Order: sequence, then structure tokens, then C-alpha cells
Amino acid sequence: MCRRAPGGETAVMCRWMGWQGQPVLIEELLFNTQHGLVDQSLHSRMGAETTNGDGFGLGWYGAGEGPGVYRSVAPAWGDANLRHLAGHIESPLFLAHVRATTGTAIQATNCHPFSHGDWLMVHNGLVNDFHPIRRELMLGLDPSSFAEIEGTTDSEVIFHLALACGLKDDPLGALEQTIGLVEEVQRRHGIEPALQISIGVSNGERLWAVRYSSARESRTLFRSEDAEAIRRLHPENERVQRLLDSDRIVVSEPLADLTGAWHELDESTTLTVHPGGEVETGAFRPRVPAAA
Amino acid sequence: MCRRAPGGETAVMCRWMGWQGQPVLIEELLFNTQHGLVDQSLHSRMGAETTNGDGFGLGWYGAGEGPGVYRSVAPAWGDANLRHLAGHIESPLFLAHVRATTGTAIQATNCHPFSHGDWLMVHNGLVNDFHPIRRELMLGLDPSSFAEIEGTTDSEVIFHLALACGLKDDPLGALEQTIGLVEEVQRRHGIEPALQISIGVSNGERLWAVRYSSARESRTLFRSEDAEAIRRLHPENERVQRLLDSDRIVVSEPLADLTGAWHELDESTTLTVHPGGEVETGAFRPRVPAAA
Amino acid sequence: MCRRAPGGETAVMCRWMGWQGQPVLIEELLFNTQHGLVDQSLHSRMGAETTNGDGFGLGWYGAGEGPGVYRSVAPAWGDANLRHLAGHIESPLFLAHVRATTGTAIQATNCHPFSHGDWLMVHNGLVNDFHPIRRELMLGLDPSSFAEIEGTTDSEVIFHLALACGLKDDPLGALEQTIGLVEEVQRRHGIEPALQISIGVSNGERLWAVRYSSARESRTLFRSEDAEAIRRLHPENERVQRLLDSDRIVVSEPLADLTGAWHELDESTTLTVHPGGEVETGAFRPRVPAAA
Amino acid sequence: MCRRAPGGETAVMCRWMGWQGQPVLIEELLFNTQHGLVDQSLHSRMGAETTNGDGFGLGWYGAGEGPGVYRSVAPAWGDANLRHLAGHIESPLFLAHVRATTGTAIQATNCHPFSHGDWLMVHNGLVNDFHPIRRELMLGLDPSSFAEIEGTTDSEVIFHLALACGLKDDPLGALEQTIGLVEEVQRRHGIEPALQISIGVSNGERLWAVRYSSARESRTLFRSEDAEAIRRLHPENERVQRLLDSDRIVVSEPLADLTGAWHELDESTTLTVHPGGEVETGAFRPRVPAAA
Repeated sequence: MCRRAPGGETAVMCRWMGWQGQPVLIEELLFNTQHGLVDQSLHSRMGAETTNGDGFGLGWYGAGEGPGVYRSVAPAWGDANLRHLAGHIESPLFLAHVRATTGTAIQATNCHPFSHGDWLMVHNGLVNDFHPIRRELMLGLDPSSFAEIEGTTDSEVIFHLALACGLKDDPLGALEQTIGLVEEVQRRHGIEPALQISIGVSNGERLWAVRYSSARESRTLFRSEDAEAIRRLHPENERVQRLLDSDRIVVSEPLADLTGAWHELDESTTLTVHPGGEVETGAFRPRVPAAA
Repeated sequence: MCRRAPGGETAVMCRWMGWQGQPVLIEELLFNTQHGLVDQSLHSRMGAETTNGDGFGLGWYGAGEGPGVYRSVAPAWGDANLRHLAGHIESPLFLAHVRATTGTAIQATNCHPFSHGDWLMVHNGLVNDFHPIRRELMLGLDPSSFAEIEGTTDSEVIFHLALACGLKDDPLGALEQTIGLVEEVQRRHGIEPALQISIGVSNGERLWAVRYSSARESRTLFRSEDAEAIRRLHPENERVQRLLDSDRIVVSEPLADLTGAWHELDESTTLTVHPGGEVETGAFRPRVPAAA
Repeated sequence: MCRRAPGGETAVMCRWMGWQGQPVLIEELLFNTQHGLVDQSLHSRMGAETTNGDGFGLGWYGAGEGPGVYRSVAPAWGDANLRHLAGHIESPLFLAHVRATTGTAIQATNCHPFSHGDWLMVHNGLVNDFHPIRRELMLGLDPSSFAEIEGTTDSEVIFHLALACGLKDDPLGALEQTIGLVEEVQRRHGIEPALQISIGVSNGERLWAVRYSSARESRTLFRSEDAEAIRRLHPENERVQRLLDSDRIVVSEPLADLTGAWHELDESTTLTVHPGGEVETGAFRPRVPAAA
Repeated sequence: MCRRAPGGETAVMCRWMGWQGQPVLIEELLFNTQHGLVDQSLHSRMGAETTNGDGFGLGWYGAGEGPGVYRSVAPAWGDANLRHLAGHIESPLFLAHVRATTGTAIQATNCHPFSHGDWLMVHNGLVNDFHPIRRELMLGLDPSSFAEIEGTTDSEVIFHLALACGLKDDPLGALEQTIGLVEEVQRRHGIEPALQISIGVSNGERLWAVRYSSARESRTLFRSEDAEAIRRLHPENERVQRLLDSDRIVVSEPLADLTGAWHELDESTTLTVHPGGEVETGAFRPRVPAAA
């Protein structure tokens, strides 16, 4: 899912962000911040100097049933439709993602977020040697889940496995089982478990995130500090002064050079953003599902 | 702008619609009506049996500054993004358009609506032999208007000419002057004035429409009847019962087979839909601008 | 794969054609015939009045290793790139296909032809109720074949099943086993075997075609008559006079209103076009593979 | 046309290359070289670290009348169609271009090469403050040339001005007049003449290139050294050994780290590659056309 630079090392390239809080025009986070996600798609600072130009996706909650989703293979920086959508859709909770592919086709169905009912998922990371195990993982899905798969990414399969493992009732537990299952299948195929995940999930009420990697060298993941603290540190910054206590941002890399605004999540950590903005962290411990 | 069928006759193929009234999810008009605009893009009933598969556009007012615009060359019926947008954007006033081209490139910048500040315009029709006169019309634009032109349609030029003729202050007067100018330029080039227009224009507060053709054989244009009348005629229709007196639809061809729901506009007629839903019609009389 | 018209009946909408013979510019068959494939994508005569605007694909043999493939979701009639390719690629053997979808995503990876090594396949038809059985059919693929599947069509799965059944050694036998397998799996799922196929396959040396349907109401399939006969019947037609004895066209529907130029294939029939243009037909008898 | 990095400096970002010589599969130059044009679109070494992901274009001579052209807004590195075309089209003369935009729309009609009859042009560079002068330059075109303009780039206008100035009879002279005209118009608008050009032009028989900038800080431009010299320097390199004396490559930046293979063109220089591979250089002296 994320491009391997020549020589084999994996470049850190997909990026995502989530917002939960007061309804805001999506452009506030995508375009109007100093180093917003669209800018990151062009000049990613944390990691390799490559770009994230293989597609963009946005999932937002607001009007209508469940989340709206916009996915496009046009690079985000030049997408006129995206600018318009972002400037004219207000949402209290949304996820956005820029993609760089390892080889799976560049098509909208391979862009994140993936959606199912009220649920959205974005993923930044990599499942090493995914192709040999993709078949086995997909065949672990029941026929109707299998039929829902539209693309060829590891991320989409992980999403549907998580749904099968009870994402709707216990997202973090479901993700622990899903990752546990993937690592188990890797072992069975003689592959040293090797995956890196930075996942964002939501059902429109809450936002969950996970940072984990088998080798403990996962993509970065940050959450914003308490709005009160940020406001206190930056009294001159007008936009910051509009932050409410309920507002939280979760990102792969910081959106702005604001001192004291970002808190990095540790390896193997979960994050829950509750309605009202309160955050809760926990340990992420993959385990093989009972029926695996 | 609209395709010529083999043999030279002009097929009626572009279609547009406008909604003004209570905020509704855009899908209500685009997808959820019996013969909505997206269905029309596949099976146009009024006119030739060809389709309108060369692009789609949507302009809506609501959140954010001015109108949001979505334009895509993907045929409307299969555009997943469009379904999502329509299902998750609520708007009290929007215009949508499906396109069939005569030869100008199929690209988003050639799709309607065209926008400038708060203004949107959609156009269904044809300016015969536009290419010889396009240069002269465009050179009638001042440099900054000229610089705004992104595509190669006659419609976009008409929009900017109308802006130059005072669209913002008197839309109908500006359109009369614009069409008068185009017919004058046609005469100067030895072309018998021949254009057909069905235009929709809005600034977010009101919706204006014009039906006109030089040869008096223009594309059809309909407006919905008073909501009260439609509700009375169709007491069993649940969706119709939700219509408010402020709700008006303007369309190239009727969206649904509802008896008594549609009123056809005469040739050379203007329509104004006022806030509150009141409609006003008038005569459309092209005249050459004073400074032409 | 092919759209169901409202009311449930299946409209005949995907179309394909194949050329084998002297090297010709691809545009000769795609654009320069009276009712070429691109025109068919706009106005299909045989079947419903809908169009085939959900994607186009071209696979050709000539320069380079194996076939070149061009697949695009832009409707064929307006695709400038396609016009250029067709006008500047000369090939002695090519397959082209226009698509109309039943619901699987409109994306290039869902367009035909599908390719594997030297092999190409196009398919016009429908596997009823494919989704419930897709998982089982894909299960029958070994991991590396599974990993090659890029899209979500029944056609692509059929192609890889055929490869697994020995397409490279005995194309017609492999297709008999593949279709037999699909019908068997349908029975196992309580579905009355119902599929319609009009398939074209090539390895760059020969062209094979199959017409079959479970209910014996399959899409039409035609081959051109002997060049000598066509030349004799149309002495005034300059293009026809250039036909060589080695030239054969296979099509879903005739490309031109040339009397005596087309021979319709019967139901449950195979066609082989040998190098040199000689044609051979046979019976198509699906049978369940030994190891099913 | 080429992106301005934040802070105002212009990043060197569009790239082009040309091949003239023995017929080769286009992929040999696009993909199979160490640092081919597609790789350059991802990691441009000479200049800023941004990418060239706003479109790709290819114009080639070979089969059919005049050049074939393929232009796409899909970033080159992920374009499956491009890989196939490049791997299956053999050509003795072709131009390829990767684009990064300053703001004009990302659409195929804004990608290079531009074509007219037998002629192709690619351009790497920038006309500062083009928008104010675009109208005046386009005014200088006769109606039929004006009607041919499909996009909104300065490059396309320059191409048509050059055609009007006699490109077909004297390409270098026509370009001198064109650039002279543009600089003159800039002066009339109170703009200090400021343009940078690295242009490639061909009619299918010869390849011409120009490197020039008003401020003498133009994009780089290289040509390959005599094949004999490159073969002598790299006896172990199998691909190099296949170079013929008639083979020439012209590029914005070197395609491979081959010592002694590249010769940089000076500022204000023209290059002509004659059939047979012989190269000729000259001075490039913009002059205002007689009738300006």
C-alpha cells in the first residue's frame, strides 16, 4: 500500500487525518492549515521525499444517512472538485487520506476511506508480502463480506476482517483480533510477522485510532493537545482561539508548526476520542481470534 | 455543445434542472425521482434517443461562501462520488446539468455550471457555427474576464459576456443583451442568427431561467406548478405531500409523471423564482448592447 | 456485467470485435466503418436502446512482447487518446470491447480485454447472480492466480478460471470446463444455471470465439464471410476490395450494412480463426472439470 | 505552467525528452533507462524536490498519418495504459513530456505535446505573468488558429503563434519571432520581459530544440553525445552498444548516469537533429516579427 523506495526500504508515504468536534468547513483542515493534508500530499516532511499522489479520499458525517465519501485518483493538490467540496461541506467529524501505492492499481476503489454502513476506516501503513496471504485472508470472509470488496488493497481487506471480528461493537478489540489474525497467517506462510499500521476508524459518534507495528517501527501518529492548552500557548493565533474544548485532531504528521499543540502516540497504543473531546488511550495487543 | 446527429439535425441532449425552496438532500431530485436528471442522462425521453454521457455538473448553495461546484466527465449514472455528494449535501438552491458535446473536448472545465463569485449558470442549447464567432465574442471580453475562461464551450463565453453585460444587477436584461450581441455577431459573419438557449442562472437567492431560440424552436423548459396544487392532485404521494409552498423546480424535461405538476414555458420567455417560491414570467427580447 | 433494463430484462449492451489478418490501422475497424464499434457504443442497434458508455478496452498484437492493452472509463466516442491510438497503431490481430455495467465499479481494471502473458480475453454476456458464487469461484483459483485479479467482474474471474483449466493448451476445452464449472457452482447454490457468453480469446496467433447460453438465448455473434465472396458482392466498395483472403472479423453485431458479408454463429458454437484466415466451427459443450 | 514554490521562486519542474534515430519501443527511453522521464516525474533531481505529477503526454511518429498523441492527467508513474503503449509502440521519433502546473487546470488539453498536422511541440518553462498578456497574444491569431486552441496554457498559445510565424517553413526562425513577440507584448504591459523556454519541436523528419531565457537562467537542456563516443566509453553496457550513429536523445535532464554521454546546451542556443543523427547548433535571437 505504501511505496517501497528503490533498495527495498519502505518509505513513509500515505497520510491521514481526522477531525472530531464543532462542525467546520472541511477546508479548514485540508487546505487552510499551515501544513495541511493536501500540502502533505505534495511535500511530506516526515519520511521520504516522495509524494502521496496516487489518490485522495474523504469521508464525512453530517447531512444524510451515514458518511458521505469522496474518493479520487486525481492528486489532491490539483483537484478542483475537492477544493469545492472542502469549502462547502461542514462536518463535525471527518477522515481524510492521501495515498501512495506499492503496486495495486490506482483507482478510486483502492482509495481510503473504506465504508460500510455508518463506519469508515483509513489506514496508513503496510502489510509486508500481502499478496501471498491476501487470498487466505479474503477467504476468511463470509460470502456477503467477500462480495463487498471492491478493490485490491490490504487495507480494504483489513477493514472487512475487522467488521467480521465485531468492529461495530468493540472497534479496538476487533482491530486487535484482525491484526492478530494477519500476523498469524503471515507466520503460517513462513513470513516473519511484519506489518505497520496507523488506523483511523469512526462510526460518526466517536473516532478511534491505533498505532502499531510488528517490529515496533510504525508510522507516526499524533493527536492534538487539549484545546485549552493550545489556546493558552498561542493567544495571538486567531484560528487557534476558535478551538473548543470538544475539538480534537488526529494526524499522521502535525498539521501546523504550533508549539505544544501535538502529542505523539506511543507504539502499540490505541486512542479513543469521545464525544465532548475527551481522549482515552490504551495498549494495543493483537491476539488471534478464537475461531481462527 | 449539444451533439449533432448524423445527417445534421441537432438532437436535444443536454439537460438541466434547478431547485429552490426548503433545504433538501440533492439526491432527492437527482436520483430519487421517477425520471430524475441522472436517469435522463441515460434515457432522455424528449428528443433523440442518444444519451447525455459527456459530463455532469452540480452547483449548490449552502455551507461556505458562494456556491460549491462539482463537475466530472464520468457519466452521471455510474459516478459513485456523485451519489455520495447528492446523498450528503443539503441545499435550498442548486443547479445540475448533464452534457452531450458537439465536438469541444470532454473535460471538467467544459461542464456546467460555470461559476463566478456567487453566480452560477447552466445552459442547454446550441449556438450554431460557434467557432467562427468565438474569437470575436471572446475578444469582446476585458482581459480579466478573458483570463477566467477555462474551457472551449459557447456556454462559458455566453456566461462571461452576460457578466460583462451586468448579470449581477439585472440578470434577464444582461442575457437579452448577450443573446442580442451573439445574434448580431452571427449576422456580421454572414450566418443567419441561429441559437437555441435554455439557461438557468442563480446568485444563491433567486433562480432565473430563459427559453429562447432565434428560429423559435427551442429546447423545452418547464417549471413546477404551485406546491399546493400538486399536493391537492396527488394526496397519496408521500413525497409530494412534503412539498412546501416555497418549493420550485425548473427543468428541461419533467422529472416525474405527475399529472398537473408541470407548466411549460413558452418560447421567448423569462422565469424568475423569488425567495418564497413565487414565480414571475416575462418576455425575452434580445437586443444589441449599446456599446456593441 | 451487462445492465438490466428497468423491468428486469437484460439488455444486450456490451459489444466486442476482433480482427485477424493483414496489419491494419486499428481505426479502420473502430472508427472508419459504417457502424463501427465506437458507433455501436453510442447507438447499439441490436438490443436495447441504451448505450455502452461504461468503459472501453483494446488489446492488440504487434510491436513489443505480448499484447498491448488500453483500457479507459472514458466513453469511447469522446476519447481523444483512443482516436490517436487507433490511428497510429497497426496490428494484424486485435480485440476491442465496449462495456456497460450492472453494478460493478466503473474502473479501468473492470474493462476488457483482460490479459495474462500472451493471452487476451473479451466477454459480452452475463453470469446471473454472480455475487453469491464469486467467492467460491475465486476460491478455486490458486494463490498466484487469485493475486492477479485486479477487478470485480465475473468476466475477469472466468478468464483466470479458464487459464487454470488449461486455456494456453486448449482454449476451447478450457472454456467448456470453465463454463461447466460455473453452471455447476450455480446449481450448488440453488441457482438455475443461467449465463450468457460471447467470448473472444487470442494468444496473438489465433483468434477463438464462443457463443453459448444456458437458456440458449445468447448474445449474437458474427464472423465475416470469405473475403473473396465479399469482394465479389461489392465490387464498387474500395475498402472492401482491399480485403485479403486472410482477413477475418468477428463481432457482436455487424459493423457495416454489407449484404452477404456476415455469417451468424449458432447457439452453443465455437469458432477458430486460423492464421491464413481459414475458419473452423464446432460444438460448445460445457462440462464440469474432472477435479471440481 | 511550472509551479511556483512557496516564497515565489520558480521551481524547475516540467520535463521533456525527444528521441530521433532507429525505431525503438518507447519504453526504452521512458521506463527502461536508469533515470527515465517517468522516474523524473517522481524524483526530479535537477531543481526543486517537487514532482511533476500534473499530467503526461507523448507524441510519436510511425504508423498512420502524422503523429499519434497520448495525453493524460494520470501521474505517469502509475499509468497502466502508458506502460502498455510504451511497450508496444515502436517509433523512430517521439517526444514525451511531464507536467507540473502553476494554476491552469489539470486536464489533458493542457498537457504537451500540442499537435497540428505533422507538427508537435513540447515546452518546459514559464512565461511570467502570462494571464494579462494571454488575451493580446491570442488576439494575434487568426480565427481558425484561435479556434484550434483547446486549453489554457501559455505553451499552447506559443505553439500556435509559432505556426502563424511560419513554423512549418523555418521552425527556428518562427520561434525567434514568437519569443520576440511575447517579450514585446510583455514590455507593452509594463512587465520586464521574463520567460524561460526549453522547447522541442518536430515534424516527423527532424527534431529542433531551443534553450533560452530572458534573464539567461533557463531550464537545462541536454543532447546525447555521438553514439560512437558513448559506445567507446561504455563497452560493458549492452544497451549502449546497441546505439547507432543516427540515434540522438534530447532531454531536460540526463536520463542516465553515463559519463560522457551528455552535452549541455548553452543559453540562447538552438539545436537541430538531422535525419542521420548529425547535430547542428546555432544562436537563438528573439526578434519582433515584422508585422507585430
